[in-house]
Amino acid sequence: MQPQYQMGYDRAITVFSPDGRLYQVEYAREAVKRGTTAVGIKCSEGVVLIVDKRVTSRLLEPVSIEKIFKIDAHIGVASSGLVGDARSLVDRARVESQINRVSYNEPISVETLAKKLCDHMQTYTQFGGARPYGTALLIAGVSDGEARLFETDPSGTLLEYKATGIGTGRPAVIKTFEDEYQEDADFSGAIRLGIKALHAATEGKLDVSAIEIGVVSIETGEFRKLEKDEVKAYVDQFEE
Amino acid sequence: MQPQYQMGYDRAITVFSPDGRLYQVEYAREAVKRGTTAVGIKCSEGVVLIVDKRVTSRLLEPVSIEKIFKIDAHIGVASSGLVGDARSLVDRARVESQINRVSYNEPISVETLAKKLCDHMQTYTQFGGARPYGTALLIAGVSDGEARLFETDPSGTLLEYKATGIGTGRPAVIKTFEDEYQEDADFSGAIRLGIKALHAATEGKLDVSAIEIGVVSIETGEFRKLEKDEVKAYVDQFEE
Amino acid sequence: MQPQYQMGYDRAITVFSPDGRLYQVEYAREAVKRGTTAVGIKCSEGVVLIVDKRVTSRLLEPVSIEKIFKIDAHIGVASSGLVGDARSLVDRARVESQINRVSYNEPISVETLAKKLCDHMQTYTQFGGARPYGTALLIAGVSDGEARLFETDPSGTLLEYKATGIGTGRPAVIKTFEDEYQEDADFSGAIRLGIKALHAATEGKLDVSAIEIGVVSIETGEFRKLEKDEVKAYVDQFEE
Amino acid sequence: MQPQYQMGYDRAITVFSPDGRLYQVEYAREAVKRGTTAVGIKCSEGVVLIVDKRVTSRLLEPVSIEKIFKIDAHIGVASSGLVGDARSLVDRARVESQINRVSYNEPISVETLAKKLCDHMQTYTQFGGARPYGTALLIAGVSDGEARLFETDPSGTLLEYKATGIGTGRPAVIKTFEDEYQEDADFSGAIRLGIKALHAATEGKLDVSAIEIGVVSIETGEFRKLEKDEVKAYVDQFEE
Amino acid sequence: MQPQYQMGYDRAITVFSPDGRLYQVEYAREAVKRGTTAVGIKCSEGVVLIVDKRVTSRLLEPVSIEKIFKIDAHIGVASSGLVGDARSLVDRARVESQINRVSYNEPISVETLAKKLCDHMQTYTQFGGARPYGTALLIAGVSDGEARLFETDPSGTLLEYKATGIGTGRPAVIKTFEDEYQEDADFSGAIRLGIKALHAATEGKLDVSAIEIGVVSIETGEFRKLEKDEVKAYVDQFEE
Amino acid sequence: MQPQYQMGYDRAITVFSPDGRLYQVEYAREAVKRGTTAVGIKCSEGVVLIVDKRVTSRLLEPVSIEKIFKIDAHIGVASSGLVGDARSLVDRARVESQINRVSYNEPISVETLAKKLCDHMQTYTQFGGARPYGTALLIAGVSDGEARLFETDPSGTLLEYKATGIGTGRPAVIKTFEDEYQEDADFSGAIRLGIKALHAATEGKLDVSAIEIGVVSIETGEFRKLEKDEVKAYVDQFEE
Amino acid sequence: MQPQYQMGYDRAITVFSPDGRLYQVEYAREAVKRGTTAVGIKCSEGVVLIVDKRVTSRLLEPVSIEKIFKIDAHIGVASSGLVGDARSLVDRARVESQINRVSYNEPISVETLAKKLCDHMQTYTQFGGARPYGTALLIAGVSDGEARLFETDPSGTLLEYKATGIGTGRPAVIKTFEDEYQEDADFSGAIRLGIKALHAATEGKLDVSAIEIGVVSIETGEFRKLEKDEVKAYVDQFEE
Repeated sequence: MQPQYQMGYDRAITVFSPDGRLYQVEYAREAVKRGTTAVGIKCSEGVVLIVDKRVTSRLLEPVSIEKIFKIDAHIGVASSGLVGDARSLVDRARVESQINRVSYNEPISVETLAKKLCDHMQTYTQFGGARPYGTALLIAGVSDGEARLFETDPSGTLLEYKATGIGTGRPAVIKTFEDEYQEDADFSGAIRLGIKALHAATEGKLDVSAIEIGVVSIETGEFRKLEKDEVKAYVDQFEE
Repeated sequence: MQPQYQMGYDRAITVFSPDGRLYQVEYAREAVKRGTTAVGIKCSEGVVLIVDKRVTSRLLEPVSIEKIFKIDAHIGVASSGLVGDARSLVDRARVESQINRVSYNEPISVETLAKKLCDHMQTYTQFGGARPYGTALLIAGVSDGEARLFETDPSGTLLEYKATGIGTGRPAVIKTFEDEYQEDADFSGAIRLGIKALHAATEGKLDVSAIEIGVVSIETGEFRKLEKDEVKAYVDQFEE
Repeated sequence: MQPQYQMGYDRAITVFSPDGRLYQVEYAREAVKRGTTAVGIKCSEGVVLIVDKRVTSRLLEPVSIEKIFKIDAHIGVASSGLVGDARSLVDRARVESQINRVSYNEPISVETLAKKLCDHMQTYTQFGGARPYGTALLIAGVSDGEARLFETDPSGTLLEYKATGIGTGRPAVIKTFEDEYQEDADFSGAIRLGIKALHAATEGKLDVSAIEIGVVSIETGEFRKLEKDEVKAYVDQFEE
Repeated sequence: MQPQYQMGYDRAITVFSPDGRLYQVEYAREAVKRGTTAVGIKCSEGVVLIVDKRVTSRLLEPVSIEKIFKIDAHIGVASSGLVGDARSLVDRARVESQINRVSYNEPISVETLAKKLCDHMQTYTQFGGARPYGTALLIAGVSDGEARLFETDPSGTLLEYKATGIGTGRPAVIKTFEDEYQEDADFSGAIRLGIKALHAATEGKLDVSAIEIGVVSIETGEFRKLEKDEVKAYVDQFEE
Repeated sequence: MQPQYQMGYDRAITVFSPDGRLYQVEYAREAVKRGTTAVGIKCSEGVVLIVDKRVTSRLLEPVSIEKIFKIDAHIGVASSGLVGDARSLVDRARVESQINRVSYNEPISVETLAKKLCDHMQTYTQFGGARPYGTALLIAGVSDGEARLFETDPSGTLLEYKATGIGTGRPAVIKTFEDEYQEDADFSGAIRLGIKALHAATEGKLDVSAIEIGVVSIETGEFRKLEKDEVKAYVDQFEE
Repeated sequence: MQPQYQMGYDRAITVFSPDGRLYQVEYAREAVKRGTTAVGIKCSEGVVLIVDKRVTSRLLEPVSIEKIFKIDAHIGVASSGLVGDARSLVDRARVESQINRVSYNEPISVETLAKKLCDHMQTYTQFGGARPYGTALLIAGVSDGEARLFETDPSGTLLEYKATGIGTGRPAVIKTFEDEYQEDADFSGAIRLGIKALHAATEGKLDVSAIEIGVVSIETGEFRKLEKDEVKAYVDQFEE
Repeated sequence: MQPQYQMGYDRAITVFSPDGRLYQVEYAREAVKRGTTAVGIKCSEGVVLIVDKRVTSRLLEPVSIEKIFKIDAHIGVASSGLVGDARSLVDRARVESQINRVSYNEPISVETLAKKLCDHMQTYTQFGGARPYGTALLIAGVSDGEARLFETDPSGTLLEYKATGIGTGRPAVIKTFEDEYQEDADFSGAIRLGIKALHAATEGKLDVSAIEIGVVSIETGEFRKLEKDEVKAYVDQFEE
């Protein structure tokens, strides 16, 4: 529970606390921490995004819980946190990508897109009339033949990782990667490591049918979501 | 009752609480929980929407309590929560559908419409000057020969279900569906299951004359509300 | 008296309370509950509106206390609650009716008008910068040869009734109607029932000279306010 | 003194209290109750407005304390409450009258003008960014050969009276009128009654030199303020 | 000191208190009461304005403390209260005067100018986003061969006086005038009375060099500030 | 420390306290009182501005602490208080000067510029959405062959002085000037007096290298900042 | 911890506290104090910027933690504080530089750019609707063959230093520079001193791989970031 003297800072948007923090931004980060776990891993062949969708009811159509989104031919995004906010950011990302194609006649670079999204998110932490986004993104793509993996958070901070995770299971995922990540793995190895990390993050209660995997390949320069049976193959492999 | 230290977060719209929640959105969900119960069920022939209108007085014209709305030839919606808010969203849905027809010369896809409504609802959770919508919707329709059933809530979250419910009776409805739902039922079976779920949700006090049923058929691709005697036939069947 | 922990929700317009209610809307309903009593009754010949104007001083010109308003040739409205708010809604209703005539060259349907007014009232419950309307309306009219009677409230909810009442005396009016209403009554019977209901609502202190009656006839399709002597005839009849 | 739990409602403009009242409007009425007393009386010859200007210092130019204003050839207004607010409303009334003459080439009807002013005052009770007017008006005029006398208050309520009063002395004035008002009096009788009512309202401390009288005559259809000696004649008559 | 229960009303601009007062306006009047004393006196030859500038340091250039301002050829103004606010009103008065000359090709009447300034000041008491003016003005001029002397205050109230005062010393000034004011005095007599009143207001600590005098003459129709030696002559006369 | 009952007034900008003061303006004055000390002195040859820049670290480039600014060929300004605010006002002053040259083809008069700056500062004390400036200025210049020295403060008050000071050391400076100021001093005498005053204001801890001097000469009509060695000469002289 | 009576000032943006401080600005400075440490040092050959990026995980791509930014050919910037805010200021700086090139066909002077950024930052401390920037910048560049090094802070204050530091380690850095800074050092000496200062600031836990160095050379007039091996060479040198 918050000590009483801090209550005042929470009400006004984009106001500093006496120790120089923006509480609204930190609270938005809590929304991310309560989200589904997503991991991103760079490997020798490209970048892998894996999400545990936490499907809790057989009545749900798992396919409708979209946590990995294709942004452009060469870029995909995984999200954690408020679902509506994520969709709003994904829409924006798609528009920015199309604008780049129309304006410069070439695909947007992964870094440019990530910076544009972060700039957008930052304004929601500085100006009144709106709250910060309650969403973190993993942005994976290929530019100039190089794999890139960015992580953003509600403050608009942008960091590039070799491997990282967002959402509830982040600490367990990071621990797994700190111990076992290898840059020279291929897609197969990276996916196996990602599933292992998610497994650790869910304390073994990983639901196979609810795993979503996206990969962007350096060779083809294309992002695609794996088909259900491809996913199943990796999960089966893991469970053996 | 809310503990005292949370009072501050309720007053300002679209502000995060220290644990990353948007109280205004959660309170809006309470408005939905106090609404009439509505169920939606996909079946082999299409989608079924059933609402218990809770007509409490013989002075009321039951027909005026509209809880199922035709949006376009191929899409219907059932609502629960604040009545005025629902009508506002229904108006918006109809306009979006017409815009699609005018712009692209074809009916809007069910998923596109559902996403547009959710995007709209999400903005009311992020920007100041207005409160979130106090309404949930079941959006049923047929696109490309496939039956679709979406559920939205005040946060702008969008999920697709095989069968689901909104409003006061949601827990009882979901329980019934978890136990008895079968994908391969026909309209008749789906409607019987829906009535059974509503019966459970109202603890047996289901008012026959106040049941409203809408169906969208894969075969015809059309949404229509059942006539009074059609509804009566199903209810009589159930009561036997 | 309100418990202390609710005070915060009252100050900000259009904000949800923890249990999903919009207090400002409910308080506006209190303004209606403190208003003069008005009743509306559908009958075989059309719809009847009757208001007890509560003239309290012989210095007042009773004619100036207008509680029943002609909106268009075929539509009349009775109001209860804040007088200035009612006049503002009546002005809007008249403008909407004229717009319909100009745009489509035909009279507005009663239901369309009622929905437009409710949509307007709903926006005052969702957006900041203004309070909800403190007024309920009974909207009576004839469309396509059918009598219609709608009731609106500050939330923008719209219901159609066979017979209903608004204002201070609503509970007594509704009780009278639940017991004695008959759909097949003629104007004369409906007016007598309405006066009886108002009599019950005012605990017998009904002031004859302050009763205002409006009728819309299926036959003529016209709304008109009864002349003073017509009203007197009905009241005399009642008192016998 | 207000009980403590009501304090919250006073701060935000145009917000309902739990019992459905608009405190800001009721407080504005208090400003009227603290204003100078004005009376209006319909009689067989037209309408009379009389004001006690309460001139308290011999240094003041009594003529500068204007409480009765000519709006148009056929309409006059008496005010009570905040002086600056009254002047603002009077300006608006004059403009509305001129607009009517320019638009329709005829004088504005008294009722139309009164309604327009009330509509204007009502908006200040519903929308944010401004407070309600702290002023009541008596609007006297002749339209279609008929004398009219309207009273408005800060809520935008409009009532027509045979005889009425506003300001501090209202209760004493109304009591005098309830007892002694006669519709068939001529100007002379009406003015004497008005002075008597003001006398009662000021507990006999009526200051002759500070009485202002305006009359609008059915015969001429003109509004005019009485000259000093005309006023004196009536007051002398009264004091005998 | 204010009782504690009134604190709420002070924070929001242009809000009524339960007893119908506008505290912000009354507080603005306090700013005037803390201002330098200014007096205005009508006499047989015109109007006199006298101000005690309270120069407290020999380092100050007394000429820079301007408390009497020429507005137009025939109008002068004395101010008390917030200095910056006074200058803002004086600028406005000069612009209004010039607009009148340009629009109608004649000097603005003193009353018209006074009303325009008051209307302007009133809006600052009714609309949000700004505070009322913390300044009172004495407006002296000649129109149609007649001397006029108006006093305004932060509420936008306008009164015409034979003789009056504003600022700290108002009560002492008014007392002097109530006892000794004579309408038929000439400029010389009026100025002597004004100096006497200021002397009383400052408890005898009147600083000769800091007295500023403006006169507007019926004969010439011109406003002018007296030269230093003219002022000195009057003060010397007084001190004898 | 402020007594508790005043807290409410501090939060809302441009609101009067019960005793007619604008706390935000008075608090802005505190920002000035915490600023570096600046003095201005009129003398027979023109005006002198001297500032003690309080350079506290050898790592600082003293030249970058600008406290005296050239506004136009004939006008200079010294500031105390918030540094960013001062720069904003200086920018505005320069623009106003250039506008005058462009519009009228002549240099702006010192008084006109000073009034324009004060008018600008006054608006920040009356309108919402911004705080008052936390800066005082000494405005020195030559117009029509005459030396002028104005002092402004956060309220927009404008005073002309023979000699004055702003910032932390004001009381000591004023005391020195009250005792020793002579109008007929030449530049050399005025500068020596200014340095003496600053010396008193800093309790003898005057840092030679951090003294900045600007002079505007009646003879040349030009403002210039003294070179480092000129300043040193005066300081050496003083220290002897 | 803040004493309780100050809480009120924190909530409203750009409001003065009773002692003339802008708390929001001071809290923004706390955000800077919690930032990574950056140093800037002028030397005989130009200016050096060095940052300790504090890379805490082997999963991070150190290159993505950008703390030194090239603004234009001749200007570089180091930042400390909120990362998103820094990026927003860097974007603005780049745009200003380009505008200067387009408008005047020449590179922007370092001082002009620094002032423009400070003016921009100052407005965020005076106007409502946004918070101040939580970022400090070191702006290094060469103009007219001279090396310049400016430091800005959230208030918009601008100072030029010979050597300075921002962020968590500022006190230790300043202490090192006060003791050991020499103006006549060459790049090599300056970089060694900077690394020493950072070493002191991090209490010896300086992470070699996370050091970023930018230099702007008087000779070439160009800013560039050192390559990884260049940085390594200096660090190795230091560690010996």
